[in-house]
Amino acid sequence: MKTFDKLESNVRGYIRDFPVVFSTAKDAHMVDEDGNVYIDFFAGAGVMNYGHNNTKIKEAVVEYMMGDGITHSLDMGTEAKRTFLETFNDVILKPRGLEYKIQFPGPTGTNAVESALKLARKVTGRTEVVSFSNGFHGMTLGSLALTGNATKRAGAGVPLGNVTTMPFDGYLGVDADTLAYFEAFLNDAGSGQDKPAAVIVETVQGEGGVNVASWKWLRNLEKLCRRHDILMIVDDIQMGCGRTGTFFSFEIAGIHPDMVCLSKAIGGMGLPMALVLIRPDLDVWSPGEHNGTFRGNNLAFVAATKALDYWRDDKLEEGIVFKGLRVRERLDALAGQFPKAQLVARGRGMIQALESKLDGFAEEICAEAFANGLIMETAGVRSQVAKVMPPLTIDEVVLEQGLDILENAIAQVAARRFPNAYGKSVA
Amino acid sequence: MKTFDKLESNVRGYIRDFPVVFSTAKDAHMVDEDGNVYIDFFAGAGVMNYGHNNTKIKEAVVEYMMGDGITHSLDMGTEAKRTFLETFNDVILKPRGLEYKIQFPGPTGTNAVESALKLARKVTGRTEVVSFSNGFHGMTLGSLALTGNATKRAGAGVPLGNVTTMPFDGYLGVDADTLAYFEAFLNDAGSGQDKPAAVIVETVQGEGGVNVASWKWLRNLEKLCRRHDILMIVDDIQMGCGRTGTFFSFEIAGIHPDMVCLSKAIGGMGLPMALVLIRPDLDVWSPGEHNGTFRGNNLAFVAATKALDYWRDDKLEEGIVFKGLRVRERLDALAGQFPKAQLVARGRGMIQALESKLDGFAEEICAEAFANGLIMETAGVRSQVAKVMPPLTIDEVVLEQGLDILENAIAQVAARRFPNAYGKSVA
Amino acid sequence: MKTFDKLESNVRGYIRDFPVVFSTAKDAHMVDEDGNVYIDFFAGAGVMNYGHNNTKIKEAVVEYMMGDGITHSLDMGTEAKRTFLETFNDVILKPRGLEYKIQFPGPTGTNAVESALKLARKVTGRTEVVSFSNGFHGMTLGSLALTGNATKRAGAGVPLGNVTTMPFDGYLGVDADTLAYFEAFLNDAGSGQDKPAAVIVETVQGEGGVNVASWKWLRNLEKLCRRHDILMIVDDIQMGCGRTGTFFSFEIAGIHPDMVCLSKAIGGMGLPMALVLIRPDLDVWSPGEHNGTFRGNNLAFVAATKALDYWRDDKLEEGIVFKGLRVRERLDALAGQFPKAQLVARGRGMIQALESKLDGFAEEICAEAFANGLIMETAGVRSQVAKVMPPLTIDEVVLEQGLDILENAIAQVAARRFPNAYGKSVA
Amino acid sequence: MKTFDKLESNVRGYIRDFPVVFSTAKDAHMVDEDGNVYIDFFAGAGVMNYGHNNTKIKEAVVEYMMGDGITHSLDMGTEAKRTFLETFNDVILKPRGLEYKIQFPGPTGTNAVESALKLARKVTGRTEVVSFSNGFHGMTLGSLALTGNATKRAGAGVPLGNVTTMPFDGYLGVDADTLAYFEAFLNDAGSGQDKPAAVIVETVQGEGGVNVASWKWLRNLEKLCRRHDILMIVDDIQMGCGRTGTFFSFEIAGIHPDMVCLSKAIGGMGLPMALVLIRPDLDVWSPGEHNGTFRGNNLAFVAATKALDYWRDDKLEEGIVFKGLRVRERLDALAGQFPKAQLVARGRGMIQALESKLDGFAEEICAEAFANGLIMETAGVRSQVAKVMPPLTIDEVVLEQGLDILENAIAQVAARRFPNAYGKSVA
Repeated sequence: MKTFDKLESNVRGYIRDFPVVFSTAKDAHMVDEDGNVYIDFFAGAGVMNYGHNNTKIKEAVVEYMMGDGITHSLDMGTEAKRTFLETFNDVILKPRGLEYKIQFPGPTGTNAVESALKLARKVTGRTEVVSFSNGFHGMTLGSLALTGNATKRAGAGVPLGNVTTMPFDGYLGVDADTLAYFEAFLNDAGSGQDKPAAVIVETVQGEGGVNVASWKWLRNLEKLCRRHDILMIVDDIQMGCGRTGTFFSFEIAGIHPDMVCLSKAIGGMGLPMALVLIRPDLDVWSPGEHNGTFRGNNLAFVAATKALDYWRDDKLEEGIVFKGLRVRERLDALAGQFPKAQLVARGRGMIQALESKLDGFAEEICAEAFANGLIMETAGVRSQVAKVMPPLTIDEVVLEQGLDILENAIAQVAARRFPNAYGKSVA
Repeated sequence: MKTFDKLESNVRGYIRDFPVVFSTAKDAHMVDEDGNVYIDFFAGAGVMNYGHNNTKIKEAVVEYMMGDGITHSLDMGTEAKRTFLETFNDVILKPRGLEYKIQFPGPTGTNAVESALKLARKVTGRTEVVSFSNGFHGMTLGSLALTGNATKRAGAGVPLGNVTTMPFDGYLGVDADTLAYFEAFLNDAGSGQDKPAAVIVETVQGEGGVNVASWKWLRNLEKLCRRHDILMIVDDIQMGCGRTGTFFSFEIAGIHPDMVCLSKAIGGMGLPMALVLIRPDLDVWSPGEHNGTFRGNNLAFVAATKALDYWRDDKLEEGIVFKGLRVRERLDALAGQFPKAQLVARGRGMIQALESKLDGFAEEICAEAFANGLIMETAGVRSQVAKVMPPLTIDEVVLEQGLDILENAIAQVAARRFPNAYGKSVA
Repeated sequence: MKTFDKLESNVRGYIRDFPVVFSTAKDAHMVDEDGNVYIDFFAGAGVMNYGHNNTKIKEAVVEYMMGDGITHSLDMGTEAKRTFLETFNDVILKPRGLEYKIQFPGPTGTNAVESALKLARKVTGRTEVVSFSNGFHGMTLGSLALTGNATKRAGAGVPLGNVTTMPFDGYLGVDADTLAYFEAFLNDAGSGQDKPAAVIVETVQGEGGVNVASWKWLRNLEKLCRRHDILMIVDDIQMGCGRTGTFFSFEIAGIHPDMVCLSKAIGGMGLPMALVLIRPDLDVWSPGEHNGTFRGNNLAFVAATKALDYWRDDKLEEGIVFKGLRVRERLDALAGQFPKAQLVARGRGMIQALESKLDGFAEEICAEAFANGLIMETAGVRSQVAKVMPPLTIDEVVLEQGLDILENAIAQVAARRFPNAYGKSVA
Repeated sequence: MKTFDKLESNVRGYIRDFPVVFSTAKDAHMVDEDGNVYIDFFAGAGVMNYGHNNTKIKEAVVEYMMGDGITHSLDMGTEAKRTFLETFNDVILKPRGLEYKIQFPGPTGTNAVESALKLARKVTGRTEVVSFSNGFHGMTLGSLALTGNATKRAGAGVPLGNVTTMPFDGYLGVDADTLAYFEAFLNDAGSGQDKPAAVIVETVQGEGGVNVASWKWLRNLEKLCRRHDILMIVDDIQMGCGRTGTFFSFEIAGIHPDMVCLSKAIGGMGLPMALVLIRPDLDVWSPGEHNGTFRGNNLAFVAATKALDYWRDDKLEEGIVFKGLRVRERLDALAGQFPKAQLVARGRGMIQALESKLDGFAEEICAEAFANGLIMETAGVRSQVAKVMPPLTIDEVVLEQGLDILENAIAQVAARRFPNAYGKSVA
């Protein structure tokens, strides 16, 4: 660990929560250099949907490398990219009745978001974009302007402009219609709200605290966009690729976003990759108008293509729904079990979470869990939410083991905080 | 190719210049799906310094993968990252008397630049940054504000602020002292130039047209920064990792930048990776203040570590100097050989170029070269520069073959343009 | 009129609504060059609170001029300015228990607003300012960013930044607590709303459509500002100087704004003048940090001082209340009289208005009134509000005459629009 | 004076340099409340071109007031405005072969500048504007972005954008062609300089230090603008209305700006007024797109019209030239007389100045002069320039008296600073 303290910038974060040095990983397990094994309910912040070192995906990549396949290609044509494009179209888009042009921006989520913003502004000739409270869309200047978190925003060092934040579903209480509020501004030419080029929305806000937009709200948001000729961009970087139960997180809502940003799990085994899906008539890019060196990460294309095999039948989806419900069932039970902890469970598919109103409670849960071999991170601007986000492919037995550790962790923290209510120790 | 037309966004660029589908590559050769072999003077826009599928690097990566090494880790601790940190410090920094903290931003160049901007603004409390004419620093909003190219700037869709462009070395003619101009503005509190947090500079502007800053100019720029308490950031994304003859492109100038951005070739074999080197006392980042999912691309760490073996002795550097001089010798000869083409050769180390004042000439050279099995790209805002940028490890025989193709290409283009002067065909 | 068409810019506005050439005016009457007399319910957009060519004020100014008093002084010391400062302090501030430093910015409302913004940003070190839907604060770039009207905003030609618009009292319906919405954003560090330096508010939005903030809402806004350490600026440019019944429009609310902007009627007889009142401990201006040539319009100081005589006893205030109630009584009656016109009356003191939901109705009323000798303007972003804003000193008989003309005008318009309901003509 | 300390904001400036309370003024004399008489070489920062309380102008205004003429009219039609428009066209524009539409913005210089910026951006659809080093254009946010002075810029409290500063004539030394530098950026699509909507320039920079642009440079600037389709705006707020010897300061250059901003002396006797002159085909304003309450300051129209009588023959112009040369002659002599003071004289017409390289020297001269009955201000970002700017109508005898006081003041300061060279006292 001294090496990191001495040589790595103070900006390093997760290593402070998980202060070990990892060396190997397989499926839903990670192993540190001392041989300690951890169950992974973090999944690389939503990257490892198919598990660490997924055997089939890894084999495809290694085979490709051994054959001297193209590794890096910018936006030149390669066999690996062509195969990905065709497979993605055949396996994902066509069966869902979707038609999109595919842009490969730089291989990070923020680059996909910046691309979508540029194109939305170009198409409409407008400068403003609307994002939502507690949204998280990335850390480069264009994406950061969309991001709600005050600390991260302050990092810009310059005022962030050309963005207005509107309240996300549920932000003003369960009864308040946040879109009515938004539309009041749009309907009134005296509102001071310049007509936006686009809205950008996550269907479930991962970093923002696992806030779940209802299907109805998403449908109403789409209608609002249509009424006012505003483009709708779904940032599906963390929630896409099956996290919530379907490949795209918005499928059940039945909406058709004008653009969709994908990254994280799209690369199959953690290889950097990002996509922007663009409604064909909006693809008014000039050649090279947005570029970047690592757009052609072919190892990621190979891995991504292989990963799409999971979507050729319904097994993965069914597993997500089943295991997601099981996680939620146990979280709900935990919330009931520890009323003093003021826990609320929420989520969709295999992103589930427990929020505690008590300061620091969620952080303590995660720390205790880690000490007992379970990797979980907090979310929300006050780290008030403990997030359960395992690989989608996690074995059910391992999932239950992880949930047991979580239960014990909560019990330990509760026992420390409320010794009379829950006893000094439940271990 | 139909797949790309149908499914990929119009933004795709290089595939239009190199309209084939590549399938494999090894060292300085690329092979398309029809088995045609190309010599690579493009090197993935400066990524492939150690050649495609460099055997030793690739073996290290495959071995790591086969052992289920961590693939993706965000900014958690991993063995692969620790080894890279230590190796980079021991092999690169220490022997050069440099001391830097190392930040891993998102694994693209633009992310490194955005990080450096944020930190410079945070450290100084100032908002303005100075970049140079024809600079290229990336396509996300913060980096794009630093970029000179008008077409790329227009892609932002919003006015780009908080940046002033100053003239690069030689921009106002050989005799003009562009730094005197810059400093006139700094010395005068009535100049309208707000005091900048930082300057960001490339020692050789790759995308901007292979414009070479003199050592003296770079030293004077550093002095100017010190006099005015302005941070100096070197964007060594394309010119670092040996491209110009030394690991850092600024070593011979003897300057000590406050921050250095690295990417492209640092990943060893084309794997996405980026670094910001930070003067230790400037490392005032809060934990997590700048983050991003793909900061922990461990395959890249493994490849990067292996690639640093090239810097344990002087052989690579000597080869760069030797081969760089050879390229320049031949380019100078070509300039003399085709006076009507108005060619000027320039460059440093193994980035060399021919500029032609004639509209479209450089583009025609590259197209002709490609038709004859040589991959080269143009640079400069009017694509007026043909860029020779092979892998640093290119075999001398292959290098000469490539230069022969280039010579023939120029002769063909010249013969078409000036049939009386150079004959109808020289093939 | 040809002269104006030929020589004056197309930007001219009011002359299109009142297409005559005025030559003289006295108290609440204006006379055009053909001798036609008009009753003035417009009062120079709220400037002529004491009537045109108010005898006592005018005499004071002429006497000052005849004595070769200083006319223009920038911010040098003059007797006229000193007398104004002392009188304003003695007659206005002290009796109301208020303590403010007085800044003389350029003599227009927008200059006062720009000054207040600068100072608020300097004091707090923050960049954002919150304004309210349908607010109007001026047309220079800083003030325009605060202004709600989309057409006026678009005139900027650049995106307007560093401002967020929040909903004014009543904006989201009578039951919605718009400040709860505002505070939800402030309370949540993930809201994307950067903490503002200040809020700027009109107690009654004149240009925005005579929208009246309740005393409770204003008090709650002040409390919200105190809780979050945000400065509160009241733009009292149109509503101050007695328009709503007290010298400052916020007196009855019992709030103590950190800054107050005054202009329009402060100059007594229409002479350009503006003030910023500053809580003494916030007066951190450096000498000359905000300047401007016409800050020292001494004729305005003389007129303003004389006008303050009206505030030495309660007569004016009582008259405003009395006449304001009378205007409202008649407007309410008109709303009842013409139900098809869907009229709603609202206002405070001597700014009263009729809004009609019918497109163009208010504009037709004002045009018809003008044709019959009454000057009134519309307000609101769709010109949907007919505004009654006579001089505060208007004679009661003249006031009734004006209201009679207004009644007839409505009847005429109603008769045209709904011939069956109201008859073809009521004249 | 205590009143000002206690009640007026710390932002007050000139009162600190001239710490007396003025009470009356006539022609080129000002009188304080103790009866002390001062010769005025300041002229209200260039407002009082026709002298204080100019008899004919004042009589016209008083007569107008006594006849109950309209005082304030926004942009309604009035006889006084019509007369001004016609007179300005007949006496100023037509004889000079100029054709402009006339806009009355708010009655301050900065409002004229903000209007011109808006219109330039609207006409061209571009956002950037170019201003020049040491330019001064006002203090509202749009104008402030054009202003060079770092202290004044910092007052904005937000980064100032959409403006680039280019070097004024002579800024880089006598031999440097600053426009060549400017054009290098315009000619190169890689320069990072977005194509501007307009340039805005003062022919002589008053606040910036009496920097005089040569006729040739102004002509070349106009040509550059034409070549690149950039609008040319002349800010003639201080230098217009005869200050440099002709009504417009650019007449001798023979250029035809697309827009001209006038204010200060246009109001005849110090009454707030401003104009934007607009090339007729550029007058694409929508009605009311830029507005403001005090656009119709009719007393100023009356005064301005009367003042134009001075331009019906050549006497005033001849006097400016004659007296300007006399001032310069004496300043040159003073520069020669006190070589240790390192004085340089410069100026044009009746704006003349002495710059001293010695810190504080110019400020001491002005303070000493004031103590001896002469009002002069400094200019330049370091207050390094003592400015001679009397009323254009100043009596020759008074002018010489003032220059005598100035000479004595310099001698006094020199004697204090260099007792051996110039003696302890020269009084």
